Amino acid sequence: MATMGKGRLEAFSDGVLAIVITIMVLELKVPHGADFEALRPLLPSFLSYVLSFIYVGIYWNNHHHMLHAAKRVSGRVLWANLILLFWLSLFPFATGWMGENHFEALPSAVYGFVLLMAAISYYLLQQSVIAADGPNSLLKQAIGSDWKGKASPFVYIVAMAVAFWAQWVAQVIYVAVALVWLVPDRRIERAIDSTES
Amino acid sequence: MATMGKGRLEAFSDGVLAIVITIMVLELKVPHGADFEALRPLLPSFLSYVLSFIYVGIYWNNHHHMLHAAKRVSGRVLWANLILLFWLSLFPFATGWMGENHFEALPSAVYGFVLLMAAISYYLLQQSVIAADGPNSLLKQAIGSDWKGKASPFVYIVAMAVAFWAQWVAQVIYVAVALVWLVPDRRIERAIDSTES
Amino acid sequence: MATMGKGRLEAFSDGVLAIVITIMVLELKVPHGADFEALRPLLPSFLSYVLSFIYVGIYWNNHHHMLHAAKRVSGRVLWANLILLFWLSLFPFATGWMGENHFEALPSAVYGFVLLMAAISYYLLQQSVIAADGPNSLLKQAIGSDWKGKASPFVYIVAMAVAFWAQWVAQVIYVAVALVWLVPDRRIERAIDSTES
Amino acid sequence: MATMGKGRLEAFSDGVLAIVITIMVLELKVPHGADFEALRPLLPSFLSYVLSFIYVGIYWNNHHHMLHAAKRVSGRVLWANLILLFWLSLFPFATGWMGENHFEALPSAVYGFVLLMAAISYYLLQQSVIAADGPNSLLKQAIGSDWKGKASPFVYIVAMAVAFWAQWVAQVIYVAVALVWLVPDRRIERAIDSTES
Repeated sequence: MATMGKGRLEAFSDGVLAIVITIMVLELKVPHGADFEALRPLLPSFLSYVLSFIYVGIYWNNHHHMLHAAKRVSGRVLWANLILLFWLSLFPFATGWMGENHFEALPSAVYGFVLLMAAISYYLLQQSVIAADGPNSLLKQAIGSDWKGKASPFVYIVAMAVAFWAQWVAQVIYVAVALVWLVPDRRIERAIDSTES
Repeated sequence: MATMGKGRLEAFSDGVLAIVITIMVLELKVPHGADFEALRPLLPSFLSYVLSFIYVGIYWNNHHHMLHAAKRVSGRVLWANLILLFWLSLFPFATGWMGENHFEALPSAVYGFVLLMAAISYYLLQQSVIAADGPNSLLKQAIGSDWKGKASPFVYIVAMAVAFWAQWVAQVIYVAVALVWLVPDRRIERAIDSTES
Repeated sequence: MATMGKGRLEAFSDGVLAIVITIMVLELKVPHGADFEALRPLLPSFLSYVLSFIYVGIYWNNHHHMLHAAKRVSGRVLWANLILLFWLSLFPFATGWMGENHFEALPSAVYGFVLLMAAISYYLLQQSVIAADGPNSLLKQAIGSDWKGKASPFVYIVAMAVAFWAQWVAQVIYVAVALVWLVPDRRIERAIDSTES
Repeated sequence: MATMGKGRLEAFSDGVLAIVITIMVLELKVPHGADFEALRPLLPSFLSYVLSFIYVGIYWNNHHHMLHAAKRVSGRVLWANLILLFWLSLFPFATGWMGENHFEALPSAVYGFVLLMAAISYYLLQQSVIAADGPNSLLKQAIGSDWKGKASPFVYIVAMAVAFWAQWVAQVIYVAVALVWLVPDRRIERAIDSTES
């Protein structure tokens, strides 16, 4: 299997993530009136935009750290990355639908489904990078037990089910998971640090 | 003929491909209702989005491999690349039209036409890169007989004709060609490997 | 704390800024008529587009200079940068709303609020970069007293208040602040120059 | 004056140009019908898209060559580049308006005006690069008399006037100028070649 530069993979991913994070704002339709009454209906859309911005920011941040620790990019890594980008590309749709419908049950569950698939794709990408790097993978040592990566999908599934019963609880779960992830992968930073020093 | 860096050609192509792959999702219009009934009409648009995402992913992947093997970028390569990007930029339109019309005959044939023109443009770009690299072109050795590149245009023409007779058969052909291409150009990977070792 | 390359931070920021500056133009809706009467209602939208283009251009320019002077990129810098990008991503919305409503009071004040939050975020990002670089930070020496960075937020607050009393005065203030900033951060250029020579 | 890397200037310009060239296609609204009758009204929009794609492609190509020959990037170059990007960012609007109104007089003249301002901006950017590089500017030697750059603005002015008298003649002029420019700046390629060999 050929070893390729990480440069273009990072550039393409950055491009897609930059566009995803920016076109989500297009779902914040400019209102026709010029008073507070015109702004108020946008509040749910704005809140769902903020939540999704944080999630895409977390993905970009951790993707940055993951590829920083990666040594080789195999064909399998390229495709695992595209699958992750596919699910992230559905964020604008899921965000817009959830915001426009004021966090109703089904849109909230669909939002959770997109989060779930993105989390699984991220996990598979991580495994591909580790496989491409071989037994001494820096990334493998760095992520350790990876409890956040392993627990998140199950939490999203719980949130999806909860959405049909108490829609706001699902939102609280999405926000809570985002807060847990907001701490960047210091494990990877530490592992790289100890290698470089 | 001047030798130029590949960097900006790759950066610009990555930019265009990242935008093409992402704005296609804007054709998935956020529905007004919040139940399954509101989602169902989006299914054809979603399926055509998935198909186009895979095709653009294949183009990005093979473009990545092709330029990795290229040594020189001539003026002719720059323009051949722009022609390829032009046809790829029509993917969002062709995808949206086909999806919104539930894979009817004409939109399916037009989609095939865009696939056909992109395939021909890719072939011409490949020839330009080989011509710029001269007699010992690594890319030329790498692609070998290039049966996939040579056969695809004819298969698209067949699919376009078939679309008017049995629209779903055309879709099956588009999916089948995508699956054949999903395997990345291992020939190029192998040729590069053997050079580097 | 790990030291990371600035490359991807710059690439991602450039991507977001390039998209923000370009999708603002989508708020200039193509009119249906083909005469001057059809163009005239677009004048306020065009003027607000020009103003925002200049502001985003200033941010890109100064961001370019800031990161040029930065040596280290910490996790805190990554997040401070994302917060800045969040507020800049609201420019298309704020610009479109202000333009479509002919610079009325509330949209003008909301525009000022987005400017205010972007300015505060930029200041916090600057502090993060200085903190990451340590006591001998080149950026710290370069920005000196940073009176423009410290004064701008207060001026935006004044403009927001003034907007409810005399909306055009607020616009004059926004334009004036932009003109003051149009001069790039020569202090940083000078400081880098003196280091390099 | 500080010497800065060209990298970010190229990256940001590539980003904006990639987005401009791609969002123009959004003016090709997906029609509701699925037959040839539904496609026919799109023909003028498609033709104006093709014309603008070629123009943006030419700008990207020549911008690529220009910065390849540049040695220094001054603050003045950064701003001249932003002004060029501003006018190029109006291409989607001008293209959409001209296409939707079937090349009527005023939209055709406005299209010519955007071409004119972009050409003047390009010329000013070129002068800024030459000034930043100093007396031995490679770019200065490379462009020689620059008759194409100097003549184009006047031709656009003629086309703008002609548009009110015979709208199709204006289109013929726009196409003709594009064809003249399609030949990349071989002068620059040659000058760089002779320096490098």
